[in-house]
Amino acid sequence: MIQIDHLKQLLNHQDTESITEYIETFRPFDLAECIEQLKSREQYELFNILDPAMSAEILEYLEPVIQYRILDHLDEAMTSKILNNMSSDVVADMMLAIHRYQAEKLLILLPEGYSQKVRTLMTFPEQTAGSLATVDYIAARNAWTLERTLRHIRNIGHKAEITSYVYVIGNKGELLGVVSLKNIILNDPQTLLSELITGDVVSVPASMEQEEAAELLSRYDLVALPVVDQQDRLIGVITVDDLIDVIHEEATEDIQKLGGSQPLDEPYFKSSVFRLYRKRIIWLLILFVAEAYTGTVLRHYEDTLSEVIALAFFIPLLIGTGGNTGTQTVSTLVRALAVGEVHFKDIFKVIRKEVITGLMTGATISLIAFGRAYILGVHWDVGLVVALAAMTIVLWASFVAAILPLILHKLKADPAVVSSPFITTLVDGTGLVIYFTFAKLILHL
Amino acid sequence: MIQIDHLKQLLNHQDTESITEYIETFRPFDLAECIEQLKSREQYELFNILDPAMSAEILEYLEPVIQYRILDHLDEAMTSKILNNMSSDVVADMMLAIHRYQAEKLLILLPEGYSQKVRTLMTFPEQTAGSLATVDYIAARNAWTLERTLRHIRNIGHKAEITSYVYVIGNKGELLGVVSLKNIILNDPQTLLSELITGDVVSVPASMEQEEAAELLSRYDLVALPVVDQQDRLIGVITVDDLIDVIHEEATEDIQKLGGSQPLDEPYFKSSVFRLYRKRIIWLLILFVAEAYTGTVLRHYEDTLSEVIALAFFIPLLIGTGGNTGTQTVSTLVRALAVGEVHFKDIFKVIRKEVITGLMTGATISLIAFGRAYILGVHWDVGLVVALAAMTIVLWASFVAAILPLILHKLKADPAVVSSPFITTLVDGTGLVIYFTFAKLILHL
Repeated sequence: MIQIDHLKQLLNHQDTESITEYIETFRPFDLAECIEQLKSREQYELFNILDPAMSAEILEYLEPVIQYRILDHLDEAMTSKILNNMSSDVVADMMLAIHRYQAEKLLILLPEGYSQKVRTLMTFPEQTAGSLATVDYIAARNAWTLERTLRHIRNIGHKAEITSYVYVIGNKGELLGVVSLKNIILNDPQTLLSELITGDVVSVPASMEQEEAAELLSRYDLVALPVVDQQDRLIGVITVDDLIDVIHEEATEDIQKLGGSQPLDEPYFKSSVFRLYRKRIIWLLILFVAEAYTGTVLRHYEDTLSEVIALAFFIPLLIGTGGNTGTQTVSTLVRALAVGEVHFKDIFKVIRKEVITGLMTGATISLIAFGRAYILGVHWDVGLVVALAAMTIVLWASFVAAILPLILHKLKADPAVVSSPFITTLVDGTGLVIYFTFAKLILHL
Repeated sequence: MIQIDHLKQLLNHQDTESITEYIETFRPFDLAECIEQLKSREQYELFNILDPAMSAEILEYLEPVIQYRILDHLDEAMTSKILNNMSSDVVADMMLAIHRYQAEKLLILLPEGYSQKVRTLMTFPEQTAGSLATVDYIAARNAWTLERTLRHIRNIGHKAEITSYVYVIGNKGELLGVVSLKNIILNDPQTLLSELITGDVVSVPASMEQEEAAELLSRYDLVALPVVDQQDRLIGVITVDDLIDVIHEEATEDIQKLGGSQPLDEPYFKSSVFRLYRKRIIWLLILFVAEAYTGTVLRHYEDTLSEVIALAFFIPLLIGTGGNTGTQTVSTLVRALAVGEVHFKDIFKVIRKEVITGLMTGATISLIAFGRAYILGVHWDVGLVVALAAMTIVLWASFVAAILPLILHKLKADPAVVSSPFITTLVDGTGLVIYFTFAKLILHL
């Protein structure tokens, strides 16, 4: 663990050597966490001392606005060195997070060709593959020998972020293939790259959604994903760590949606109370209005209810069980759709599976329900109504929860819209209708 | 897309050359999907023809039992070649999935030293870091020059799975550090490995839970994670693709748990109806029994209810809204705990945030609730009861949903146990008590 007080002390004493020595024993991620807690002045002092390569690595774990604030307070030579050491995708993200004028001031600190590439990265919309790409890869020509390629790697490899693969491009910059560094080392130095490339390289268009890119990466077990433009020219490469972040984000979003709120887009403590309110109140209101019709249903059965007041005892129990059943099914299916285990064409298989499971759980629950009615001391025919309603509601909830996510998926809508609160609300009203229909039939009301 | 009929035709004509040519244009993952649909006899024919390295890659995407069935039907020389080309972690998983006697028959086809390593991998329990490790990495000695290391890589690199890093080990096999292939190429051939290693290598004990290992990997942006024993000796290395699978699995588990069922452990269509039933009915029953006390609560207020039957109209609406609020909070927090954004020490910050948000959503909902009561045509003081109950229930649900996941996390239990159905059930009964308490106070019943 980093001793933040110790670090502060060293900074106070301006003990440059000890600071460098101390810092070197820690990892950039952990240093970033610690540096966030320093005062601004201390941060500037620290980054003025550190090796630019180390500074760049640490900065990559900080928020874009903090990155900018720190860079803005260092002298220009240092800023330029650090900037050149940072991954181009991180630089592009920072540029997009700050004012255009501020970004311009920083971009001129980069070499001409490089700043042009960063500008290109800045044009890709958020959440697309292009926005995740880095240009710090190694490109080579088809006709090069491995010897020449190795010389090239020795020349520019220090600056590259992705070095386990060499991307082979044609005359117009089009991506021809990929050769691993391992293959370059293992084969005869006079071999041509063209002899080693596997033509069938997995690449993605810059406009592809990041979620889809992450899926491709995990399907084919890749560690880097080249990004191309419409003419198949190589724009950049996405590294696996960025796509792991995407996988985490998408799972977080799905969980928040299934929980019946809009996704937060930001970490919990970074989200203000107003943001939490905004993201939640929308669905709460929609669901409240939808749930309000249960009042109408109950008013409709007011006479039945006042005649056998015991019927009211079981309302929360029955609709609750319906909601629980629906929630179980929906969450399983939304996830199965997200990871590609289930598709719309499987709808009949899914219905069959869920309805059979529903019959089994429904039968179990309905037995227990009858027992519960007996314990509450209501008349046996009310118990019968409760048991039959429980069976039917479970079955109905299973069926609705099985088809809705699949239909939404087919309609290109997000199946996670059918959240747990959504299916609960839907089943509540219909469950009451089922319950009171049985009541009227069996109790002759 | 692979034309399965075309492949079948080629196999029927025993057209070896065309088959190899055709197969080579596709990726192992896609081939595996297609081969699953072939008849067993066709599968054996195909794997008899294919290059063992290609066969090994394809087999890695198939289920262990299918892997074994195919290998068992090929002649011994071919089986041995394929087995030697497969990743050691996949081989170990297959050995564990089949009968011990069958495994022994296969293990003798491996070279002595290698089969010993596979046997070691087989000793690690499922879900641990050790069970994910492969032994197909490149190890080198501290005192080696880069030149000697490169020679070593050229000797054994063909068989290695992980080649972007070289693991430097000491005399007793203890892990001293990691050097990237890039650094080996970029530096002077006479440099010693000991000069390049960063001592502070991230490694994990074999017994660490796979979830934790995946978290480390994504925190430090690594592409491979060395696994060591209690004496810090290198046992194997986990590749990023295996940890991506873990990340997917853990998210799936959390979603299924939050949906109120036990996690399936298997893909949806691989899970039988009985398994679905078993995984769901347990929580359904627990929740049913817990929810049953709402009946007791309502019977307790039977007189109140029969006097003002209109109170019943709002029961589903009020407890539904409580459940929705609780679900929103719980799902956000369970996820934030899982990805390490929130810790138990933040409990007061969390409570503050959730209670303030709850005040805001509660106020909004209670206004709408009063309006709804007006529309349903009930007396204005019933409307007041409904509005006040809505406010209080939302606040109460926010509070309970904020603290429960944090407390469970602190107790080392899985916070996802506080599923959406769980919090809904909990809030239902307490919500009714709140509602009828207001009713008794305001309506003087």
